[in-house]
Amino acid sequence: MSWTRKDLLGLEELSKEEIEFILATAESFKEVTTREIKKVPALRGKTIVNLFYEPSTRTRVSFEVAAKRLSADVINIAAETSSVKKGETLIDTGKNIQALKADIIVMRHNSSGAATILANNLDISVINAGDGWHEHPTQALLDIYTLKEKLGRIEGLHVCIVGDIAHSRVARSNIWGLTKLGAKVTVCAPPMLIPLGIQELGVSTSDDIDRVLPDADAVNVLRMQFERDSGEAFPNQLEYFKKFGITKERLKKARKDIVVMHPGPINRGIEISSEIADGENSVILEQVTNGIAVRMAVLFLVAQAREMA
Amino acid sequence: MSWTRKDLLGLEELSKEEIEFILATAESFKEVTTREIKKVPALRGKTIVNLFYEPSTRTRVSFEVAAKRLSADVINIAAETSSVKKGETLIDTGKNIQALKADIIVMRHNSSGAATILANNLDISVINAGDGWHEHPTQALLDIYTLKEKLGRIEGLHVCIVGDIAHSRVARSNIWGLTKLGAKVTVCAPPMLIPLGIQELGVSTSDDIDRVLPDADAVNVLRMQFERDSGEAFPNQLEYFKKFGITKERLKKARKDIVVMHPGPINRGIEISSEIADGENSVILEQVTNGIAVRMAVLFLVAQAREMA
Amino acid sequence: MSWTRKDLLGLEELSKEEIEFILATAESFKEVTTREIKKVPALRGKTIVNLFYEPSTRTRVSFEVAAKRLSADVINIAAETSSVKKGETLIDTGKNIQALKADIIVMRHNSSGAATILANNLDISVINAGDGWHEHPTQALLDIYTLKEKLGRIEGLHVCIVGDIAHSRVARSNIWGLTKLGAKVTVCAPPMLIPLGIQELGVSTSDDIDRVLPDADAVNVLRMQFERDSGEAFPNQLEYFKKFGITKERLKKARKDIVVMHPGPINRGIEISSEIADGENSVILEQVTNGIAVRMAVLFLVAQAREMA
Repeated sequence: MSWTRKDLLGLEELSKEEIEFILATAESFKEVTTREIKKVPALRGKTIVNLFYEPSTRTRVSFEVAAKRLSADVINIAAETSSVKKGETLIDTGKNIQALKADIIVMRHNSSGAATILANNLDISVINAGDGWHEHPTQALLDIYTLKEKLGRIEGLHVCIVGDIAHSRVARSNIWGLTKLGAKVTVCAPPMLIPLGIQELGVSTSDDIDRVLPDADAVNVLRMQFERDSGEAFPNQLEYFKKFGITKERLKKARKDIVVMHPGPINRGIEISSEIADGENSVILEQVTNGIAVRMAVLFLVAQAREMA
Repeated sequence: MSWTRKDLLGLEELSKEEIEFILATAESFKEVTTREIKKVPALRGKTIVNLFYEPSTRTRVSFEVAAKRLSADVINIAAETSSVKKGETLIDTGKNIQALKADIIVMRHNSSGAATILANNLDISVINAGDGWHEHPTQALLDIYTLKEKLGRIEGLHVCIVGDIAHSRVARSNIWGLTKLGAKVTVCAPPMLIPLGIQELGVSTSDDIDRVLPDADAVNVLRMQFERDSGEAFPNQLEYFKKFGITKERLKKARKDIVVMHPGPINRGIEISSEIADGENSVILEQVTNGIAVRMAVLFLVAQAREMA
Repeated sequence: MSWTRKDLLGLEELSKEEIEFILATAESFKEVTTREIKKVPALRGKTIVNLFYEPSTRTRVSFEVAAKRLSADVINIAAETSSVKKGETLIDTGKNIQALKADIIVMRHNSSGAATILANNLDISVINAGDGWHEHPTQALLDIYTLKEKLGRIEGLHVCIVGDIAHSRVARSNIWGLTKLGAKVTVCAPPMLIPLGIQELGVSTSDDIDRVLPDADAVNVLRMQFERDSGEAFPNQLEYFKKFGITKERLKKARKDIVVMHPGPINRGIEISSEIADGENSVILEQVTNGIAVRMAVLFLVAQAREMA
């Protein structure tokens, strides 16, 4: 197959073949990172704009490194200090960036659907780097890439996603990607953090991590955002850690080779113990490394699709 | 002719020939932007510092893209968080940047004359990216470039500039540039927004947009900065839009091919209606595109002048 | 000799030979800065991350320019707005940057020892760009480079460092470097700004600048941070300037060719008079220029050491 989409907005809209094509492309870029000169001229002369309406150093830096390793020129815009302040609409901002003859906008936005709105109004490529509680496709792709690298396949695996499912674009994108590739997914959280109707996405739910773990090939531990969602409905940190925290004790009942993932940054002692985060089951730092390869692949594919069109 | 100035501080000091030389140079750079690899090695190994004492994402990004397409290295300094905070004077800051062996400083500053002070104290090039209410020469150059591209000439045109003329460096630079090239300029605004003595610059004034528009080849709509200049003397937004807003209704009495310009970011429904901003008379996004070519030309010319000297 | 350290954390740990090796390497890089194309491909394909937990535009820009002249890719992280805010530890942040396959972290941090902690936990290179009151090795190296360039040697010179010695990483690094290279150092300040036991580092102390200057070959004037350390124990600005400010009057009793240095940004009329700062004894801007060469040398050497290892 060949990649034909100008944008990457989410995994919901992608076919199994498209997801696999990105993963295969990422594999060839991963090799670049091991060279002495970690750079290829694939996107030389292209301009990539990181348009971040929410601060996210990790994601911005990962995309910036990926773009520079492809020899693209990168422009960072922290949109809270830009003309957004002056009342310009999202579409106007996008059209202005397009008028600069930029090639790709990588956007983080606090509203679900913002990347789709932008993409529908522009001819240039838009990559969703996280929109509200909707999707964060490159994060899920790097999670899946890492899992496949570790276990050799995705089909037939059982992946447990634990944490605040209701407010997690990472969970949502992982669910779309994993189920399309034939994995079984269980989301695990206190009931008020599991959105109603999530089962319609083809996942099982549980509020008892200890019953899920023994059967899981991997556990993807979400960051608990206590700073954002503090409120009555929310368990306190200590209580959460006791019931859902991924600890050595808890993993005793899991498979010995269970893969422990986390999108970062980790809260040691809140959703995961230090022992496990730094332990032999953890692939947390491999996820970061693979994020570069996955983002290089996505940047490359959408740029190529536009040139073909 | 050849360009000999190390700085671009304003259009007031430039001759007609110098302005035309920049426009001609910009034309050759505009072609670069249409190539698959949008990059030329003209300023490879040069260091360009964007020194912004006021945030202006649009202008900074435009200069940054222009510099990178010339293969220069770009350093961004948001000066409110820099050593300015620690009490360093503007000239000291400039001399420090010069000591880094930077080649060009692109400066946005809130005080009129700041760019000139800097240029007079440094051997390296200074480009004024907007100083107080004084000048914003590259904005006017891109406005004029776009107008000429659209209508084939500047000489003999009648351009109406509407908005807060008193506080607009964009208006001031446009007036200098347009009149030097032989255009007739009318500034149009509520009387308290037209500075006393503006006629000495060779422009007509009016407070009735409907009487000016029928004779105009182009209207340059300034952004109304209601957030900055709120006060008693100022009309409210609704009243302003009713009397001066550029609308479909109002343009019925204008030439069918009147060119509508705006330096951006636009306030939809305040100084211009959405219909017109997005309509067929509008060249607002072409202005953004041409901004890259004009800024590439200016960066290139001042760098070359220094090498010749 | 050849350079074998993966990190540059401070001058305390370096041998005389290592310091001289950096200075010699810097000399060869200084020539690059005089070329028309001020760039060498030495670090092409390498990724350098500027990780700044304290804002310091001057140091960040100097490292960024140095890295770009070596053709490296540079990523800037202002750590107060990064995931540090989300509670990630310093080591986690470092390991994440390492997982991106970055090659060098240049770190400014407000805690003494932070760079050492990071370096001990990472395989990639760490360059200390200032840690608390501990060390600022590249600043001292550029001071020493400039002094040697001016006077032809370091051995046997008498250098007076005047200012808030107690809270100065610049003073500390200069003391280590200068004494290792055989200079005599006198620190001069009001008694409460001289730390107890400083004599153990091999320096003399004085609270009378007028007695020290006549015998000094150079005076390194520290910036007085009145904004940071305001308190009862501290002299007021006027009093300080009267007793310790470097003025024309005061330098009359010094050698005619005494070298006046300052790490910048200078407080005119507080620790130094404008006359002297801009006068013929001042090498303040040469220090800035040499900072690029010294930082190019350090970046180059630590990168090379890792490749050898």
